[in-house]
Amino acid sequence: MRSSAFEKLRGLGFDETAAGVLADHFVAAEQSGRTGHGLARIDWLATLPGLDPAASPERLVAEPGYERWDGRGALGYLTLDAVVRAQVVEPPERARLVVASASFPTGVLGFWVRRLAEAGLVGVLTATSPPRLSSPDGGPPVAGTNPIAVGVPSRDGPPVVADVSPATATYGDVLAGLASAEDVVPFGGEQAYKAFALAVGLEALVGALAGPEHGAVLLVARPEHDSVAWLRERAPDVRLPGDGPSV
Amino acid sequence: MRSSAFEKLRGLGFDETAAGVLADHFVAAEQSGRTGHGLARIDWLATLPGLDPAASPERLVAEPGYERWDGRGALGYLTLDAVVRAQVVEPPERARLVVASASFPTGVLGFWVRRLAEAGLVGVLTATSPPRLSSPDGGPPVAGTNPIAVGVPSRDGPPVVADVSPATATYGDVLAGLASAEDVVPFGGEQAYKAFALAVGLEALVGALAGPEHGAVLLVARPEHDSVAWLRERAPDVRLPGDGPSV
Repeated sequence: MRSSAFEKLRGLGFDETAAGVLADHFVAAEQSGRTGHGLARIDWLATLPGLDPAASPERLVAEPGYERWDGRGALGYLTLDAVVRAQVVEPPERARLVVASASFPTGVLGFWVRRLAEAGLVGVLTATSPPRLSSPDGGPPVAGTNPIAVGVPSRDGPPVVADVSPATATYGDVLAGLASAEDVVPFGGEQAYKAFALAVGLEALVGALAGPEHGAVLLVARPEHDSVAWLRERAPDVRLPGDGPSV
Repeated sequence: MRSSAFEKLRGLGFDETAAGVLADHFVAAEQSGRTGHGLARIDWLATLPGLDPAASPERLVAEPGYERWDGRGALGYLTLDAVVRAQVVEPPERARLVVASASFPTGVLGFWVRRLAEAGLVGVLTATSPPRLSSPDGGPPVAGTNPIAVGVPSRDGPPVVADVSPATATYGDVLAGLASAEDVVPFGGEQAYKAFALAVGLEALVGALAGPEHGAVLLVARPEHDSVAWLRERAPDVRLPGDGPSV
Protein backbone atom coordinates (compact mmCIF):
# COMPACT_ATOMS: atom_id res chain seq x y z
CA MET A 1 0.00 0.00 0.00
CA ARG A 2 2.75 2.40 0.98
CA SER A 3 4.93 1.81 -2.04
CA SER A 4 2.20 2.52 -4.58
CA ALA A 5 1.22 5.65 -2.64
CA PHE A 6 4.87 6.70 -2.56
CA GLU A 7 5.25 6.22 -6.28
CA LYS A 8 2.11 8.19 -7.07
CA LEU A 9 3.35 11.04 -4.87
CA ARG A 10 6.75 10.95 -6.57
CA GLY A 11 4.82 11.16 -9.84
CA LEU A 12 3.18 14.38 -8.62
CA GLY A 13 6.66 15.87 -8.24
CA PHE A 14 7.37 15.42 -4.50
CA ASP A 15 10.94 14.50 -3.58
CA GLU A 16 11.68 11.29 -1.69
CA THR A 17 11.47 12.86 1.74
CA ALA A 18 8.19 14.66 1.12
CA ALA A 19 6.64 11.67 -0.65
CA GLY A 20 7.63 9.51 2.34
CA VAL A 21 6.04 11.87 4.86
CA LEU A 22 2.83 12.05 2.87
CA ALA A 23 2.66 8.31 2.17
CA ASP A 24 3.19 7.53 5.86
CA HIS A 25 0.35 9.86 6.78
CA PHE A 26 -2.14 8.51 4.27
CA VAL A 27 -1.31 4.86 5.04
CA ALA A 28 -1.63 5.44 8.79
CA ALA A 29 -5.00 7.12 8.21
CA GLU A 30 -6.20 4.11 6.20
CA GLN A 31 -4.98 1.65 8.81
CA SER A 32 -6.76 3.48 11.62
CA GLY A 33 -9.99 3.56 9.67
CA ARG A 34 -9.86 7.30 8.92
CA THR A 35 -10.13 6.65 5.21
CA GLY A 36 -11.35 10.20 4.58
CA HIS A 37 -7.79 11.26 5.33
CA GLY A 38 -6.25 8.29 3.55
CA LEU A 39 -5.18 7.33 0.07
CA ALA A 40 -8.12 9.11 -1.58
CA ARG A 41 -6.28 12.30 -0.73
CA ILE A 42 -3.55 11.63 -3.30
CA ASP A 43 -5.84 12.10 -6.29
CA TRP A 44 -7.34 15.10 -4.49
CA LEU A 45 -3.90 16.68 -4.05
CA ALA A 46 -3.47 16.59 -7.81
CA THR A 47 -6.59 18.77 -8.13
CA LEU A 48 -5.39 21.47 -5.72
CA PRO A 49 -4.80 24.75 -7.54
CA GLY A 50 -1.23 25.92 -7.22
CA LEU A 51 0.14 22.69 -5.77
CA ASP A 52 3.88 23.24 -5.44
CA PRO A 53 5.61 19.95 -4.62
CA ALA A 54 8.96 21.69 -4.18
CA ALA A 55 7.75 24.16 -1.55
CA SER A 56 8.97 23.79 2.01
CA PRO A 57 7.91 25.50 5.24
CA GLU A 58 9.99 28.04 7.10
CA ARG A 59 10.39 28.79 10.79
CA LEU A 60 10.14 32.57 11.08
CA VAL A 61 10.39 32.97 14.86
CA ALA A 62 12.04 30.62 17.34
CA GLU A 63 11.85 31.66 20.98
CA PRO A 64 11.94 29.35 24.00
CA GLY A 65 8.15 29.56 24.50
CA TYR A 66 6.96 30.51 21.03
CA GLU A 67 7.56 29.54 17.43
CA ARG A 68 6.07 30.93 14.28
CA TRP A 69 6.11 28.94 11.07
CA ASP A 70 4.77 29.63 7.60
CA GLY A 71 3.90 26.98 5.06
CA ARG A 72 5.50 28.98 2.22
CA GLY A 73 3.24 27.19 -0.22
CA ALA A 74 3.97 23.70 1.13
CA LEU A 75 1.19 21.30 2.05
CA GLY A 76 0.13 21.54 5.70
CA TYR A 77 1.19 17.91 6.24
CA LEU A 78 4.77 18.86 5.42
CA THR A 79 4.64 21.91 7.65
CA LEU A 80 3.34 19.90 10.62
CA ASP A 81 5.94 17.20 9.98
CA ALA A 82 8.68 19.84 10.15
CA VAL A 83 7.09 21.42 13.24
CA VAL A 84 6.88 18.10 15.08
CA ARG A 85 10.45 17.14 14.21
CA ALA A 86 11.68 20.51 15.47
CA GLN A 87 9.83 20.07 18.81
CA VAL A 88 11.28 16.60 19.32
CA VAL A 89 14.81 17.81 18.54
CA GLU A 90 14.50 20.78 20.87
CA PRO A 91 11.63 20.29 23.34
CA PRO A 92 10.46 23.24 25.41
CA GLU A 93 11.79 23.65 28.92
CA ARG A 94 8.16 23.78 30.12
CA ALA A 95 5.81 24.77 27.31
CA ARG A 96 5.81 26.33 23.87
CA LEU A 97 3.12 27.66 21.57
CA VAL A 98 3.72 26.97 17.89
CA VAL A 99 1.70 28.94 15.35
CA ALA A 100 1.75 27.76 11.72
CA SER A 101 0.25 30.08 9.16
CA ALA A 102 -0.70 29.14 5.60
CA SER A 103 -0.71 25.45 6.53
CA PHE A 104 -3.35 23.35 4.82
CA PRO A 105 -4.32 20.54 4.63
CA THR A 106 -3.10 19.10 7.91
CA GLY A 107 -4.72 15.64 7.80
CA VAL A 108 -5.35 13.56 10.91
CA LEU A 109 -4.27 15.77 13.79
CA GLY A 110 -3.98 12.79 16.13
CA PHE A 111 -1.12 11.54 13.97
CA TRP A 112 1.00 14.58 14.84
CA VAL A 113 0.31 14.66 18.57
CA ARG A 114 0.90 10.91 18.73
CA ARG A 115 4.41 11.50 17.42
CA LEU A 116 4.95 14.11 20.10
CA ALA A 117 3.58 11.74 22.75
CA GLU A 118 5.93 9.00 21.54
CA ALA A 119 8.74 11.48 22.19
CA GLY A 120 7.41 12.04 25.71
CA LEU A 121 5.69 15.37 25.03
CA VAL A 122 2.15 16.60 25.65
CA GLY A 123 0.56 18.16 22.57
CA VAL A 124 -2.67 20.02 21.86
CA LEU A 125 -3.25 20.78 18.19
CA THR A 126 -6.00 22.42 16.20
CA ALA A 127 -6.22 23.55 12.60
CA THR A 128 -8.64 25.33 10.31
CA SER A 129 -10.06 24.37 6.94
CA PRO A 130 -12.56 25.84 4.46
CA PRO A 131 -15.78 27.01 6.14
CA ARG A 132 -18.34 24.21 5.90
CA LEU A 133 -20.18 24.34 9.23
CA SER A 134 -23.23 26.54 9.59
CA SER A 135 -24.96 27.41 12.82
CA PRO A 136 -27.72 24.99 13.85
CA ASP A 137 -29.92 28.11 13.59
CA GLY A 138 -29.08 28.41 9.87
CA GLY A 139 -27.11 30.85 7.75
CA PRO A 140 -23.93 30.52 5.71
CA PRO A 141 -20.99 28.34 6.73
CA VAL A 142 -18.98 30.05 9.46
CA ALA A 143 -16.29 27.60 10.53
CA GLY A 144 -14.23 24.75 9.14
CA THR A 145 -14.55 21.20 10.44
CA ASN A 146 -11.69 22.27 12.70
CA PRO A 147 -10.58 19.30 14.78
CA ILE A 148 -8.78 19.40 18.10
CA ALA A 149 -6.34 16.70 19.12
CA VAL A 150 -4.76 16.08 22.51
CA GLY A 151 -1.86 13.68 22.99
CA VAL A 152 -0.56 12.77 26.43
CA PRO A 153 2.26 10.26 26.95
CA SER A 154 2.56 7.65 29.67
CA ARG A 155 5.64 6.02 31.14
CA ASP A 156 3.74 2.75 31.55
CA GLY A 157 2.05 2.22 28.21
CA PRO A 158 0.43 3.77 25.19
CA PRO A 159 -0.49 7.45 25.22
CA VAL A 160 -3.95 8.94 25.22
CA VAL A 161 -4.60 10.43 21.79
CA ALA A 162 -7.97 12.16 21.51
CA ASP A 163 -8.75 13.59 18.07
CA VAL A 164 -12.20 15.11 17.76
CA SER A 165 -13.85 16.82 14.84
CA PRO A 166 -16.87 19.00 15.59
CA ALA A 167 -18.51 17.70 12.39
CA THR A 168 -20.76 14.66 12.01
CA ALA A 169 -18.79 13.78 8.88
CA THR A 170 -15.63 15.46 7.64
CA TYR A 171 -15.02 16.70 4.12
CA GLY A 172 -12.54 13.86 3.82
CA ASP A 173 -15.42 11.43 4.29
CA VAL A 174 -17.15 13.15 1.39
CA LEU A 175 -14.00 12.85 -0.74
CA ALA A 176 -13.76 9.17 0.12
CA GLY A 177 -17.40 8.62 -0.86
CA LEU A 178 -18.34 7.76 2.73
CA ALA A 179 -20.67 10.67 3.34
CA SER A 180 -22.51 13.37 1.43
CA ALA A 181 -21.89 17.09 1.75
CA GLU A 182 -25.13 17.45 3.77
CA ASP A 183 -23.57 15.33 6.54
CA VAL A 184 -20.89 17.96 7.11
CA VAL A 185 -22.77 19.60 9.99
CA PRO A 186 -21.94 20.10 13.67
CA PHE A 187 -22.45 16.82 15.55
CA GLY A 188 -24.68 16.44 18.56
CA GLY A 189 -28.25 16.55 17.27
CA GLU A 190 -30.24 18.77 19.64
CA GLN A 191 -26.97 19.83 21.22
CA ALA A 192 -25.21 20.58 17.93
CA TYR A 193 -24.82 24.16 19.17
CA LYS A 194 -22.01 22.82 21.38
CA ALA A 195 -20.01 21.42 18.47
CA PHE A 196 -20.73 24.58 16.47
CA ALA A 197 -19.44 26.73 19.33
CA LEU A 198 -16.27 24.64 19.54
CA ALA A 199 -15.69 24.93 15.77
CA VAL A 200 -16.18 28.71 15.84
CA GLY A 201 -13.99 29.14 18.91
CA LEU A 202 -11.16 27.20 17.26
CA GLU A 203 -11.66 29.13 13.99
CA ALA A 204 -11.32 32.42 15.84
CA LEU A 205 -8.33 31.17 17.84
CA VAL A 206 -6.32 30.00 14.84
CA GLY A 207 -7.25 33.08 12.82
CA ALA A 208 -6.25 35.45 15.62
CA LEU A 209 -2.82 33.86 15.90
CA ALA A 210 -2.07 32.56 12.39
CA GLY A 211 -3.84 35.04 10.11
CA PRO A 212 -6.42 34.81 7.36
CA GLU A 213 -5.19 31.68 5.57
CA HIS A 214 -5.94 28.26 7.06
CA GLY A 215 -3.42 27.47 9.75
CA ALA A 216 -2.62 25.43 12.81
CA VAL A 217 -1.90 26.13 16.46
CA LEU A 218 0.04 23.66 18.59
CA LEU A 219 0.77 23.71 22.29
CA VAL A 220 3.71 21.51 23.30
CA ALA A 221 4.55 20.90 26.95
CA ARG A 222 6.58 18.62 29.13
CA PRO A 223 4.39 16.38 31.28
CA GLU A 224 4.99 16.61 35.02
CA HIS A 225 2.75 13.68 36.00
CA ASP A 226 1.67 10.36 34.47
CA SER A 227 -2.03 11.17 34.27
CA VAL A 228 -2.63 8.45 31.68
CA ALA A 229 -1.53 5.80 34.18
CA TRP A 230 -4.13 7.14 36.66
CA LEU A 231 -6.85 6.99 34.02
CA ARG A 232 -6.00 3.41 33.14
CA GLU A 233 -6.05 2.53 36.83
CA ARG A 234 -9.41 4.24 37.24
CA ALA A 235 -10.95 2.26 34.38
CA PRO A 236 -8.72 -0.73 33.58
CA ASP A 237 -11.01 -2.34 31.03
CA VAL A 238 -12.11 0.79 29.21
CA ARG A 239 -10.75 1.63 25.78
CA LEU A 240 -9.30 5.12 25.98
CA PRO A 241 -9.08 7.48 22.98
CA GLY A 242 -6.15 6.50 20.81
CA ASP A 243 -6.15 2.85 21.85
CA GLY A 244 -6.52 0.41 19.01
CA PRO A 245 -5.32 0.88 15.45
CA SER A 246 -2.98 3.82 15.73
CA VAL A 247 -2.76 6.84 13.53
CA MET B 1 -29.51 39.50 43.64
CA ARG B 2 -25.85 40.33 44.09
CA SER B 3 -26.16 41.87 47.53
CA SER B 4 -27.96 38.88 49.06
CA ALA B 5 -25.39 36.55 47.47
CA PHE B 6 -22.61 38.73 48.80
CA GLU B 7 -24.04 38.69 52.32
CA LYS B 8 -24.48 34.91 52.29
CA LEU B 9 -20.87 34.50 51.19
CA ARG B 10 -19.69 36.88 53.91
CA GLY B 11 -21.67 34.72 56.31
CA LEU B 12 -19.66 31.69 55.16
CA GLY B 13 -16.51 33.53 56.24
CA PHE B 14 -15.21 35.00 52.97
CA ASP B 15 -13.68 38.47 53.18
CA GLU B 16 -15.12 41.33 51.14
CA THR B 17 -12.85 40.80 48.16
CA ALA B 18 -13.44 37.06 47.92
CA ALA B 19 -17.18 37.38 48.51
CA GLY B 20 -17.30 39.98 45.74
CA VAL B 21 -15.47 37.76 43.26
CA LEU B 22 -17.74 34.81 44.04
CA ALA B 23 -20.95 36.86 43.99
CA ASP B 24 -20.01 38.37 40.62
CA HIS B 25 -19.41 34.91 39.20
CA PHE B 26 -22.66 33.39 40.44
CA VAL B 27 -24.75 36.39 39.39
CA ALA B 28 -23.18 36.43 35.90
CA ALA B 29 -23.90 32.71 35.59
CA GLU B 30 -27.55 33.28 36.51
CA GLN B 31 -27.90 36.18 34.10
CA SER B 32 -26.50 34.17 31.21
CA GLY B 33 -28.86 31.28 31.91
CA ARG B 34 -26.15 28.97 33.29
CA THR B 35 -28.05 28.53 36.51
CA GLY B 36 -26.19 25.31 37.27
CA HIS B 37 -23.20 27.52 37.99
CA GLY B 38 -25.25 30.23 39.65
CA LEU B 39 -26.63 31.05 43.09
CA ALA B 40 -27.39 27.40 43.91
CA ARG B 41 -23.65 27.01 44.29
CA ILE B 42 -23.58 29.09 47.47
CA ASP B 43 -25.46 26.52 49.54
CA TRP B 44 -23.35 23.84 47.88
CA LEU B 45 -20.12 25.60 48.91
CA ALA B 46 -21.25 25.34 52.52
CA THR B 47 -21.35 21.54 52.14
CA LEU B 48 -17.79 21.23 50.77
CA PRO B 49 -15.55 19.35 53.19
CA GLY B 50 -12.63 21.44 54.33
CA LEU B 51 -13.92 24.74 52.91
CA ASP B 52 -11.37 27.35 53.98
CA PRO B 53 -12.70 30.84 53.26
CA ALA B 54 -9.42 32.44 54.30
CA ALA B 55 -7.25 30.45 51.86
CA SER B 56 -5.68 32.22 48.92
CA PRO B 57 -3.83 30.93 45.86
CA GLU B 58 -0.11 31.29 45.29
CA ARG B 59 1.93 31.76 42.15
CA LEU B 60 4.82 29.32 42.44
CA VAL B 61 6.56 29.90 39.11
CA ALA B 62 6.47 33.04 36.97
CA GLU B 63 8.41 32.90 33.72
CA PRO B 64 7.70 34.90 30.56
CA GLY B 65 6.02 31.93 28.84
CA TYR B 66 4.91 29.82 31.80
CA GLU B 67 3.25 30.27 35.17
CA ARG B 68 2.45 27.72 37.80
CA TRP B 69 -0.16 28.41 40.45
CA ASP B 70 -1.52 26.38 43.31
CA GLY B 71 -4.89 26.89 44.93
CA ARG B 72 -3.44 26.42 48.43
CA GLY B 73 -6.88 25.34 49.61
CA ALA B 74 -8.73 28.26 48.02
CA LEU B 75 -11.75 27.75 45.81
CA GLY B 76 -10.90 27.42 42.12
CA TYR B 77 -12.94 30.53 41.37
CA LEU B 78 -10.57 32.58 43.50
CA THR B 79 -7.53 30.99 41.91
CA LEU B 80 -8.74 31.74 38.39
CA ASP B 81 -9.66 35.27 39.40
CA ALA B 82 -6.10 35.80 40.63
CA VAL B 83 -4.68 34.14 37.51
CA VAL B 84 -6.73 36.32 35.17
CA ARG B 85 -5.85 39.52 37.03
CA ALA B 86 -2.16 38.63 36.85
CA GLN B 87 -2.35 38.05 33.07
CA VAL B 88 -4.07 41.38 32.49
CA VAL B 89 -1.52 43.22 34.62
CA GLU B 90 1.39 41.56 32.86
CA PRO B 91 0.34 40.07 29.51
CA PRO B 92 2.67 37.71 27.70
CA GLU B 93 4.90 39.09 24.98
CA ARG B 94 3.47 36.42 22.65
CA ALA B 95 2.02 33.51 24.62
CA ARG B 96 2.03 31.98 28.07
CA LEU B 97 0.83 28.69 29.52
CA VAL B 98 -0.64 28.95 33.01
CA VAL B 99 -1.06 25.75 35.01
CA ALA B 100 -3.18 25.88 38.16
CA SER B 101 -3.07 22.86 40.42
CA ALA B 102 -5.52 22.10 43.23
CA SER B 103 -8.04 24.50 41.74
CA PHE B 104 -11.65 23.44 42.06
CA PRO B 105 -14.41 24.41 41.41
CA THR B 106 -13.76 26.80 38.56
CA GLY B 107 -17.32 27.62 37.51
CA VAL B 108 -18.21 28.95 34.08
CA LEU B 109 -14.94 28.94 32.16
CA GLY B 110 -16.30 31.38 29.59
CA PHE B 111 -16.46 33.98 32.35
CA TRP B 112 -12.69 33.91 32.79
CA VAL B 113 -11.72 33.96 29.11
CA ARG B 114 -14.24 36.75 28.52
CA ARG B 115 -12.36 38.86 31.04
CA LEU B 116 -9.14 38.14 29.19
CA ALA B 117 -10.80 39.00 25.86
CA GLU B 118 -12.06 42.28 27.32
CA ALA B 119 -8.42 43.04 28.09
CA GLY B 120 -7.50 42.27 24.48
CA LEU B 121 -6.09 38.79 25.09
CA VAL B 122 -6.83 35.42 23.53
CA GLY B 123 -7.53 32.70 26.11
CA VAL B 124 -8.07 28.95 25.97
CA LEU B 125 -9.05 27.41 29.30
CA THR B 126 -9.93 23.93 30.47
CA ALA B 127 -10.41 22.46 33.93
CA THR B 128 -11.10 19.10 35.52
CA SER B 129 -13.76 18.01 37.98
CA PRO B 130 -14.81 14.76 39.68
CA PRO B 131 -15.07 11.85 37.22
CA ARG B 132 -18.69 11.54 36.11
CA LEU B 133 -18.43 10.61 32.41
CA SER B 134 -18.25 6.97 31.41
CA SER B 135 -17.39 5.66 27.98
CA PRO B 136 -20.40 5.18 25.69
CA ASP B 137 -19.24 1.52 25.71
CA GLY B 138 -19.85 1.36 29.47
CA GLY B 139 -17.61 1.03 32.51
CA PRO B 140 -16.87 3.32 35.43
CA PRO B 141 -16.63 7.11 35.11
CA VAL B 142 -13.29 8.08 33.59
CA ALA B 143 -13.39 11.84 33.10
CA GLY B 144 -14.96 14.93 34.60
CA THR B 145 -17.42 17.08 32.69
CA ASN B 146 -14.29 19.03 31.75
CA PRO B 147 -15.27 22.06 29.71
CA ILE B 148 -13.10 23.95 27.27
CA ALA B 149 -13.53 27.68 26.69
CA VAL B 150 -12.02 29.86 24.00
CA GLY B 151 -12.15 33.64 24.13
CA VAL B 152 -10.98 35.79 21.22
CA PRO B 153 -11.22 39.60 21.28
CA SER B 154 -12.14 41.90 18.42
CA ARG B 155 -11.26 45.52 17.85
CA ASP B 156 -14.65 46.13 16.25
CA GLY B 157 -17.11 44.57 18.65
CA PRO B 158 -17.81 41.86 21.17
CA PRO B 159 -15.45 38.89 21.47
CA VAL B 160 -16.17 35.31 20.54
CA VAL B 161 -16.53 33.30 23.74
CA ALA B 162 -17.10 29.60 23.15
CA ASP B 163 -17.59 27.54 26.31
CA VAL B 164 -18.36 23.89 25.67
CA SER B 165 -18.93 21.06 28.10
CA PRO B 166 -18.62 17.52 26.75
CA ALA B 167 -21.58 16.51 28.92
CA THR B 168 -25.26 16.56 27.99
CA ALA B 169 -25.95 18.09 31.39
CA THR B 170 -23.40 19.29 33.89
CA TYR B 171 -23.32 18.42 37.56
CA GLY B 172 -24.27 22.03 38.19
CA ASP B 173 -27.53 21.37 36.37
CA VAL B 174 -28.12 18.48 38.76
CA LEU B 175 -27.38 20.72 41.76
CA ALA B 176 -29.81 23.32 40.41
CA GLY B 177 -32.51 20.67 39.97
CA LEU B 178 -32.47 21.10 36.18
CA ALA B 179 -31.25 17.61 35.34
CA SER B 180 -30.81 14.22 36.92
CA ALA B 181 -27.50 12.47 37.48
CA GLU B 182 -28.28 10.10 34.58
CA ASP B 183 -28.13 13.07 32.20
CA VAL B 184 -24.46 13.61 33.03
CA VAL B 185 -23.22 11.66 30.01
CA PRO B 186 -21.13 12.62 26.97
CA PHE B 187 -23.30 14.55 24.49
CA GLY B 188 -23.77 13.58 20.88
CA GLY B 189 -26.04 10.52 20.89
CA GLU B 190 -24.59 8.04 18.39
CA GLN B 191 -21.46 10.18 18.23
CA ALA B 192 -21.05 10.52 22.00
CA TYR B 193 -17.67 8.84 21.61
CA LYS B 194 -16.45 12.21 20.30
CA ALA B 195 -17.46 14.12 23.42
CA PHE B 196 -16.08 11.29 25.57
CA ALA B 197 -12.75 11.46 23.74
CA LEU B 198 -12.60 15.23 24.27
CA ALA B 199 -13.33 14.85 27.99
CA VAL B 200 -10.66 12.17 28.42
CA GLY B 201 -8.11 14.12 26.39
CA LEU B 202 -8.65 17.20 28.56
CA GLU B 203 -8.55 15.09 31.73
CA ALA B 204 -5.18 13.64 30.70
CA LEU B 205 -3.87 17.07 29.66
CA VAL B 206 -4.71 18.81 32.92
CA GLY B 207 -3.53 15.87 35.00
CA ALA B 208 -0.19 15.67 33.16
CA LEU B 209 0.51 19.34 33.80
CA ALA B 210 -1.29 20.10 37.07
CA GLY B 211 -1.11 16.83 38.98
CA PRO B 212 -3.61 14.51 40.63
CA GLU B 213 -5.98 17.08 42.17
CA HIS B 214 -8.51 18.83 39.94
CA GLY B 215 -6.85 21.72 38.19
CA ALA B 216 -6.95 24.11 35.29
CA VAL B 217 -4.78 24.88 32.28
CA LEU B 218 -4.93 28.25 30.54
CA LEU B 219 -3.23 29.43 27.38
CA VAL B 220 -3.00 33.21 27.07
CA ALA B 221 -1.79 34.85 23.88
CA ARG B 222 -1.72 38.20 22.16
CA PRO B 223 -3.87 38.24 19.04
CA GLU B 224 -2.10 39.21 15.84
CA HIS B 225 -5.23 39.44 13.67
CA ASP B 226 -8.89 40.36 14.14
CA SER B 227 -10.32 36.99 13.20
CA VAL B 228 -13.63 37.75 14.92
CA ALA B 229 -14.22 40.63 12.52
CA TRP B 230 -13.74 38.23 9.58
CA LEU B 231 -16.22 35.77 11.08
CA ARG B 232 -18.83 38.48 11.56
CA GLU B 233 -18.29 39.60 7.97
CA ARG B 234 -18.61 36.03 6.74
CA ALA B 235 -21.93 35.56 8.52
CA PRO B 236 -23.32 38.97 9.50
CA ASP B 237 -26.66 37.77 10.82
CA VAL B 238 -25.46 34.68 12.67
CA ARG B 239 -25.27 34.63 16.44
CA LEU B 240 -21.71 33.64 17.35
CA PRO B 241 -20.80 31.86 20.60
CA GLY B 242 -20.72 34.36 23.43
CA ASP B 243 -23.19 36.76 21.85
CA GLY B 244 -26.24 37.51 23.94
CA PRO B 245 -26.44 37.50 27.72
CA SER B 246 -22.84 37.56 28.75
CA VAL B 247 -21.10 35.48 31.36
